[in-house]
Amino acid sequence: MRMKLALVASTLGFSLSLMAAEPVQPIYPAVVEDRDKVELGKMLFFDPRLSKSGFISCNSCHNLSMGGSDNLPTSIGHDWQLGPINSPTVLNSKFNIAQFWDGRAATLQEQAGGPIANPGEMAFTHQLALETLETIPGYVEAFKRVYDSEVITIDRVTDALAVFEETLVTPNAPFDRFLMGDKTAISQEAQAGYALFKSTGCTACHNGQALGGSSFQKMGLVKPYETNSEVAGRSAVTGKEVDRFAFKVPTLRNIELTYPYFHDGAVWDLSEAVNIMGEIQLGRQFEQKETDQIVAFLKTLTGDQPSFSLPILPPSVAKTPKPQP
Amino acid sequence: MRMKLALVASTLGFSLSLMAAEPVQPIYPAVVEDRDKVELGKMLFFDPRLSKSGFISCNSCHNLSMGGSDNLPTSIGHDWQLGPINSPTVLNSKFNIAQFWDGRAATLQEQAGGPIANPGEMAFTHQLALETLETIPGYVEAFKRVYDSEVITIDRVTDALAVFEETLVTPNAPFDRFLMGDKTAISQEAQAGYALFKSTGCTACHNGQALGGSSFQKMGLVKPYETNSEVAGRSAVTGKEVDRFAFKVPTLRNIELTYPYFHDGAVWDLSEAVNIMGEIQLGRQFEQKETDQIVAFLKTLTGDQPSFSLPILPPSVAKTPKPQP
Repeated sequence: MRMKLALVASTLGFSLSLMAAEPVQPIYPAVVEDRDKVELGKMLFFDPRLSKSGFISCNSCHNLSMGGSDNLPTSIGHDWQLGPINSPTVLNSKFNIAQFWDGRAATLQEQAGGPIANPGEMAFTHQLALETLETIPGYVEAFKRVYDSEVITIDRVTDALAVFEETLVTPNAPFDRFLMGDKTAISQEAQAGYALFKSTGCTACHNGQALGGSSFQKMGLVKPYETNSEVAGRSAVTGKEVDRFAFKVPTLRNIELTYPYFHDGAVWDLSEAVNIMGEIQLGRQFEQKETDQIVAFLKTLTGDQPSFSLPILPPSVAKTPKPQP
Repeated sequence: MRMKLALVASTLGFSLSLMAAEPVQPIYPAVVEDRDKVELGKMLFFDPRLSKSGFISCNSCHNLSMGGSDNLPTSIGHDWQLGPINSPTVLNSKFNIAQFWDGRAATLQEQAGGPIANPGEMAFTHQLALETLETIPGYVEAFKRVYDSEVITIDRVTDALAVFEETLVTPNAPFDRFLMGDKTAISQEAQAGYALFKSTGCTACHNGQALGGSSFQKMGLVKPYETNSEVAGRSAVTGKEVDRFAFKVPTLRNIELTYPYFHDGAVWDLSEAVNIMGEIQLGRQFEQKETDQIVAFLKTLTGDQPSFSLPILPPSVAKTPKPQP
């Protein structure tokens, strides 16, 4: 991998060692190894028949037309239940150390099974999801092509979903081009914002390729975060009081598209989000000009959105279990 | 148009006059005249910000991954309200004499404004939809490109939606290839089904390019249709008692994809739907073999589904009105 990066770097005419010194690294386009599996995962991602109602798909709350999120404070689930937490973007989620805000799933595959069976989200069961897919000739054929077997298991469903999700990276953001040596790719204001982003300590948590996703941190490190949300965060997984209100640091990639912000989705304005972060995490009041610079920088993190044809789903047949709206 | 058809026909080596003698005509690929407008309409079609909740888009109930329908008996609207009627497919809807089951909208453009403001569907108002779009720079730019003006009106919104929907035709069904002279395009069983479809009188209503959509007919012509639905049909528009339980004849194009069937969405099995139609519209009990033949024919009506990249929607900004889930 390092060899490959070095090769890319030298081809593009910049020094890998220089880039490595930065706390943020560029994202590269996805390399698709199993096209059939990605296509199957894409179909499943868009298929509302993985929900009890037949109305909610993965894409409902991780909408790939909208930055891989739903742009709602918290998601709408089965029977219009409002969820407890903001839907994190699926974009670049492969870079996360774990999935969900509290990191309760170690992998994308483990994550993918969660919402299907969550009574407040898709409200189905894995068993019923499988019984549905098994009746659909187009799926049986697709699973056979990918897994060399007609047996549809939840592990195969979530494997295909995860492999599709791994392709959902957003390379070629202006900031990536800047990192790779094109100093005109972002404005002077954004460059000043990046300098501030580093010097004030934002990169302590928002670092790496995704500018986040690499650690759990307390929300309200210096000053408590005021929220109506009762979500406990990481402590719900570890059982440790010290992890109360710790959350996985969200990626800042495509942040212009993934409003509203924070685990409670309470803040819609990126400037306000920056100011709150400065205050409660860094103990710092940004001046208006500083906020503007950081926001200008953050807006350079919007990369190429995944581009693909809308999948056409194979039809159910008479014996397929009926949706239950 | 006739000249063009004749030209296509002669190029493909078959006689237009022969084809014209059939009660069903082939569908041809959409000719896109204003690509920018189609792209704008596509964005709007997929944009849940045209709904009060920010969760429901046109594509929610006219899902282009699922035959342009939602495959539910009746649709799920704002706050999980279940609608009174089955969501008709948007595919090939340009061939309909009017829109909605009761034909209350004369055009696709007129139809497009309906669900946005229907309290049981997207539950928004045209005014709020416009106020939302006006704040989004990406939309302002797109409307300016298409309409040479930054003013966003509901007429422009629905015009763009309608022009996009006009592209949603499904040419190249096996039956179209059969009609155009390829006698091997459909099975002997399907050919027998088509013969029955004509001889038993199905084509009295299911005719033309869309095999439907060209007239209003009473549901239960020979024998009453048993239903729990209280929808009155065409009489709600005309005020005439004679139109009670009259509905726009639905298209049979892509019928394999647009289950469940009838205005109440009560029937999931295509064979059962065929048998009910025979009984209540034609006063005829099909034998099992006949039903199978007609179903085999109906399955040849699945055409090429619209193929396009999932649209990427322009982000809201801080002043954009917030969704109200």
